[in-house]
Amino acid sequence: MTQIKYTITFATLFASSLFLSLAWAGEKPLPSWNDVASKQAIIDFVQAVSQKDSKDYVPPVDRIATFDNDGTLWVEKPLYTHLLGVFAHMKQQMKADPALAEREPYKAVASKDLGYFMALFENMAFETLGSQLMGVPFGGMSHEQYDAWGRKFLAEFKHPRFKVGVEGLIYQPMVELINYLKANDFTVYIFTADEGAFLRLAATELYGLPPSQVHGTSMRSEFIVENGKDELVRTYRMHYLNNWDAKPRLIDQVIGKKPIFAAGNSNGDQHMLQYAAMTGGMSILIHHTDAEREYQYDKHTDKVLPLAKKEGWTVIDIKNDWKEVFPPK
Amino acid sequence: MTQIKYTITFATLFASSLFLSLAWAGEKPLPSWNDVASKQAIIDFVQAVSQKDSKDYVPPVDRIATFDNDGTLWVEKPLYTHLLGVFAHMKQQMKADPALAEREPYKAVASKDLGYFMALFENMAFETLGSQLMGVPFGGMSHEQYDAWGRKFLAEFKHPRFKVGVEGLIYQPMVELINYLKANDFTVYIFTADEGAFLRLAATELYGLPPSQVHGTSMRSEFIVENGKDELVRTYRMHYLNNWDAKPRLIDQVIGKKPIFAAGNSNGDQHMLQYAAMTGGMSILIHHTDAEREYQYDKHTDKVLPLAKKEGWTVIDIKNDWKEVFPPK
Repeated sequence: MTQIKYTITFATLFASSLFLSLAWAGEKPLPSWNDVASKQAIIDFVQAVSQKDSKDYVPPVDRIATFDNDGTLWVEKPLYTHLLGVFAHMKQQMKADPALAEREPYKAVASKDLGYFMALFENMAFETLGSQLMGVPFGGMSHEQYDAWGRKFLAEFKHPRFKVGVEGLIYQPMVELINYLKANDFTVYIFTADEGAFLRLAATELYGLPPSQVHGTSMRSEFIVENGKDELVRTYRMHYLNNWDAKPRLIDQVIGKKPIFAAGNSNGDQHMLQYAAMTGGMSILIHHTDAEREYQYDKHTDKVLPLAKKEGWTVIDIKNDWKEVFPPK
Repeated sequence: MTQIKYTITFATLFASSLFLSLAWAGEKPLPSWNDVASKQAIIDFVQAVSQKDSKDYVPPVDRIATFDNDGTLWVEKPLYTHLLGVFAHMKQQMKADPALAEREPYKAVASKDLGYFMALFENMAFETLGSQLMGVPFGGMSHEQYDAWGRKFLAEFKHPRFKVGVEGLIYQPMVELINYLKANDFTVYIFTADEGAFLRLAATELYGLPPSQVHGTSMRSEFIVENGKDELVRTYRMHYLNNWDAKPRLIDQVIGKKPIFAAGNSNGDQHMLQYAAMTGGMSILIHHTDAEREYQYDKHTDKVLPLAKKEGWTVIDIKNDWKEVFPPK
């Protein structure tokens, strides 16, 4: 009996996904993209893995897509949104306790010495950078307290140039891409070098992705039971820094399957893009070429951009490839 | 347009899950359970969170259930199946290279000195225990090689007393419970202290759970790109030991939501059971009371069993509560 019911459910699911695929095919996917080669390459790939009679057919359970977030799904200039939040929080802490400004990492924030942090970044001292910026300022907070802080920051945040919140800083063509993949039975994940706990606060609303599909750098927490109450409490220590080769390693831990589609924009995404591409998946690299509508930069792409060209990955030229950059207001 | 199509899909999904719930309700769930209080408590809980008009209603996206595996979903005596595999592998390695037997951890295995490992276990020297048994014997293997080893072991393994493979060592009442929860739109996960990579090889077939819903102790791997090929390669080092308080911490990392249902059988599950129960979820503890049909023991329950009784968690008395223990042959 159980067997029969499962069959019926699968049939129902299959019928509904088939309907969705046809609907998408009918209405032309990715409307905010110009009719360029990169758009066609994406559509060709998705059709090739989704159509039952295709030689490249991949069953739905194996249709895994992994996305970076900063610079891939939302604006990362002038600085990662998360770090802007961290700095704002550290300034508030110094206001309450001015003595903090005498020591690092607060000293660098107090003196606007971003060079201190950039030096850590350039020297790949990520563990130090991460512990100091994601660990120290929030150490001792319960997860509830951290979430409340993050929600408040996200609700109040306005981008210094565009004067909108994060809901206006996501790339409309990429949101359409996520929805197009979902409509074709992909399971879509984010793997960010930012803190996962922060992005989880926004990802359901922005991208329709539940927390279990949003992963990033994490701090070590402690599980505490006291006075009939249980709490997860953040320590000052880094648990996992999710950048570079750490991305495919975390993907394996979390999903246990290789992505067949991956999207990123910087050197930190290189290994994730290799992970998908080297066994026949599709990897795309967002190239920030549009100073007018967004930003133009090549910082942190010196390794990944030549590699993308050499390997034949699909490079998205924002200026040329996207009809719209941001969601309609 | 996008909005409309999503609505249709969700409606279809909802209709199919509703059908499944009704079908289950009609046929009486958990047929391998006796008509006992624990069974009724489970059914009452599932109905209370699933029925829209219930004051305890929980939307499907938040219906998360987490299970331990050894001793909760399958037999863990005379020793964890995974460790039996590890020992068999170490013996093969010593056959190929007898010098290995001169040093630990091989020496203990060669001399059948399980006391060496049990002392580590009793002293909670889990990191050492885990690195030595899960790390050392498999260090340097690619994930593909490890999976091939694990699949071969699982295919050949026969339980010393019951003379069956793992498919005959799972608890039929618990498989029914997993299916009952799934039919009521729960997402079911396993969090084991065993190595997750090992259990993932069996969990899809045994429990219908994809790798992304199976998590456990893990080794640190390296991501290597060489000769146009990418590989994840195991090191000798522990990445995460998933027992005790580490279980709720990993659950938060992986799922980002609290389970509302948890099941375990030993002290190592205590914190996971607290994590679900302390905010109104249901926690159940499997108590091994049936020497005749399975095993009778209270080792590693000295903390969790009194706690379960004190907190009013549902304790499953195997001898009394289960009509059948194993799947029909």
